[in-house]
Amino acid sequence: MEKWIEELKGFVPESRVLTSVADRHSYSFDASFGEHLPDVVVQVKEKQEVSDVLKLANRCKIPVHPRGSGTCLSGGPLPVHGGIVLDMSQWPASIDLRPRDLTVTVAPSVLTANINKAAEEHGLMYAPDPSSAHVATIGGNLAENSGGPRGLKYGVTKDHVLGLEVVTPEGEIIQTGGQTIKNVTGIDLTKLIVGSEGTLAVIVGATLKLMPKPPAVQTIMVAFDEVRKAGEAISQTLTSGILPAKMEFMDQACITAVENFQPAGLPVDAAAVIIIELDGHPETLGVERGLIEEIMQDMGAEEILIPKSEEEAAKLWHARKQVSPAIAKIKPTKVSEDATVPRSKIPDFMDRLQLLKEKYDLEIVAFGHAGDGNLHPNILCDKRDVEEMKRVEMAVEEMFQAALDLGGTLSGEHGIGTMKAPFMELELGEVGLDMMKRIKDSWDPNGILNPGKVFPEKGQKLVLHHE
Amino acid sequence: MEKWIEELKGFVPESRVLTSVADRHSYSFDASFGEHLPDVVVQVKEKQEVSDVLKLANRCKIPVHPRGSGTCLSGGPLPVHGGIVLDMSQWPASIDLRPRDLTVTVAPSVLTANINKAAEEHGLMYAPDPSSAHVATIGGNLAENSGGPRGLKYGVTKDHVLGLEVVTPEGEIIQTGGQTIKNVTGIDLTKLIVGSEGTLAVIVGATLKLMPKPPAVQTIMVAFDEVRKAGEAISQTLTSGILPAKMEFMDQACITAVENFQPAGLPVDAAAVIIIELDGHPETLGVERGLIEEIMQDMGAEEILIPKSEEEAAKLWHARKQVSPAIAKIKPTKVSEDATVPRSKIPDFMDRLQLLKEKYDLEIVAFGHAGDGNLHPNILCDKRDVEEMKRVEMAVEEMFQAALDLGGTLSGEHGIGTMKAPFMELELGEVGLDMMKRIKDSWDPNGILNPGKVFPEKGQKLVLHHE
Repeated sequence: MEKWIEELKGFVPESRVLTSVADRHSYSFDASFGEHLPDVVVQVKEKQEVSDVLKLANRCKIPVHPRGSGTCLSGGPLPVHGGIVLDMSQWPASIDLRPRDLTVTVAPSVLTANINKAAEEHGLMYAPDPSSAHVATIGGNLAENSGGPRGLKYGVTKDHVLGLEVVTPEGEIIQTGGQTIKNVTGIDLTKLIVGSEGTLAVIVGATLKLMPKPPAVQTIMVAFDEVRKAGEAISQTLTSGILPAKMEFMDQACITAVENFQPAGLPVDAAAVIIIELDGHPETLGVERGLIEEIMQDMGAEEILIPKSEEEAAKLWHARKQVSPAIAKIKPTKVSEDATVPRSKIPDFMDRLQLLKEKYDLEIVAFGHAGDGNLHPNILCDKRDVEEMKRVEMAVEEMFQAALDLGGTLSGEHGIGTMKAPFMELELGEVGLDMMKRIKDSWDPNGILNPGKVFPEKGQKLVLHHE
Repeated sequence: MEKWIEELKGFVPESRVLTSVADRHSYSFDASFGEHLPDVVVQVKEKQEVSDVLKLANRCKIPVHPRGSGTCLSGGPLPVHGGIVLDMSQWPASIDLRPRDLTVTVAPSVLTANINKAAEEHGLMYAPDPSSAHVATIGGNLAENSGGPRGLKYGVTKDHVLGLEVVTPEGEIIQTGGQTIKNVTGIDLTKLIVGSEGTLAVIVGATLKLMPKPPAVQTIMVAFDEVRKAGEAISQTLTSGILPAKMEFMDQACITAVENFQPAGLPVDAAAVIIIELDGHPETLGVERGLIEEIMQDMGAEEILIPKSEEEAAKLWHARKQVSPAIAKIKPTKVSEDATVPRSKIPDFMDRLQLLKEKYDLEIVAFGHAGDGNLHPNILCDKRDVEEMKRVEMAVEEMFQAALDLGGTLSGEHGIGTMKAPFMELELGEVGLDMMKRIKDSWDPNGILNPGKVFPEKGQKLVLHHE
């Protein structure tokens, strides 16, 4: 056993320093692609332990890869260079809520959905709602700056963070931001660290913004016989003075997949459906619902469904949540992307996806947060089929190029991680990428914190196939 | 004339390179404290000129101080180390609005209020509304991350920026972020630069987020016979499920000052008033107004005024805007602070201000964005009175300490600039400040971009008096 691993046991109880192959294997993957075996897994439970681990790792130049629940879709927690996986999930989950300040301070291990649950007891809400909220930790959400359907109206994780407690790559414990809604005291380290995918610091605590919970919600489902009409309808709605909380999109392949998986009564003959959630006061919802029905009729909707009960509405949202598992049944491998374009470019982006589908003879389905241009094109394939996976690689690269051509970005909410790193320069240019790297290097001179993520390594290419 | 100034004229027309004492003097101050004469003022009109100026300055190690309209309350544009003032105000003001994307791309010289005006023509709004919006440039707002009354509901400038075009201290032109609502492609350089007070890059363009304009607004004024009651009423409202667009506070001294300056019918016998603006659909406003009236009665309001007309409402908001000029009449010198505390701590902070008032025998008035804990305590004094100014210095220092004791921050929206720099370590600690400085140094190795701001210089102290 490496000497430094023995040293770890000096400040973390042996029971939380995992070295067996079985243990290490269960930390070798996340919800994305690829497997990498760490040398050791350290289950930390307090900030001093994190500080001690990082000081040792920095001294011995050992890579450290922080990890929450491992639900990441871009490889954030993968120990691509071996070394240490820092498991934050065993940290005592604490939620310290201050209703009169509309703030909450949480431990990194808290499941995101539980923050909202705690807030609701006081008539408040924690707005970010990534689809993984029930299994993902807030620490992971912060590292990746997670989005979610409500991002349309309420913004993403970063928009709700007031302050952080973090451990630097050199093991120093610092506070960033604070507990106030407004704070312009110096350079914004809080928003710098949120979304840095664990490359700048390890988050050991966070103070989040809460807001009054809207008293009522109204769900509407609209079906279209053309994808382009759905796209137009979304733009039309958002320029009509109405800002829905959610505006989710599903194409025909997704609708069919869900209906085959768990029938929810979705219109299988529709080219696309939009599921909308309005929130606010009941009086307002009535008015806005009427306006949206008018708009959708004008835009040539085939069907407008207003659920008759909460159960019926819940069923629609459940169907939306079932898209991922449902399409996973179609083929063994699912390559999920989240290239994002300006709202008005959604129809064009859908056209480009259609062309890729034909050009590379691949199964590509699309769903997601169309209201903010954040679609999730998924390529359904079979990783054992080397030849097909090579076509997937080419299609993914062209998909990114298409998004950039349309004024979009590589990733709307999943992050860069390992898979998109090779394409960073494509979007940022050499100097832009260098300016990012300077920050990383100034904080982590030995490059020990989550190496192999965000920043492309020399000659790195997207490789999904294994010869 | 310095050789480098001659060189400037090689790439900026001579007519825009100002060297006369008169010209330089008019760029030697802003809306805060202190006067510093630059060696030269360069009025840039395109990004290539900015790039050329910075390349020269970086080579010759000449300080460069970017400046918009000079309305800064913390000394952001002051050329404290001489060198170049980079006047961005003459840049051609362009506003490129894309209603279907709910985005707008603007030049740094555009007046913030004009962005909102352009948006309103499409039923949209640009939410940030600093009180200086009609005279301040968006470039300055971005550099300082300006707030404003609507920050309560809609957040500050940073929350509405999607992407930037900037010139680095070494003269490289880069794009950060983009045009999409969601973007997690790498480290967030956009939000890093917004609020960095011109120390990291010169902003030459920005893409901002627009939102649907609320169809209606409702103003309510509430008077209290005790400041503490007003504070309680604010917390009560915000935990009742209502999020007003604005919740502004004025203490008795401000009310009296305004009534002596431009009578608006404010209750001069009240200890404090809150002016609230609700926005949304008319139906909702009726309901929310009723709820707020109930809350205010429960909290012991002396008077609740519902304006009978738009004119009457406008008169109240005009009165709020008159506070600054009105209190400036009381004494020749006004030291404006914006220390910010968690919402629930406003009454405690008001008590601390009262103690300081007595302890140092000073005129201290308070008003501001109480809804988000961002008060503006103003010390009214006479800078010719050396002895008084020394008491002001001590009071300001204790005011900052009080804010920090209550879990607050040095600055909510005015920025650190020159005046608050000496107190940075008090809030951030040595390591926290060092981590900020590392970023600055990695981007600006020669320290030419806006030196003397944000980061304290060796042994720097707050000095308001001149012996």
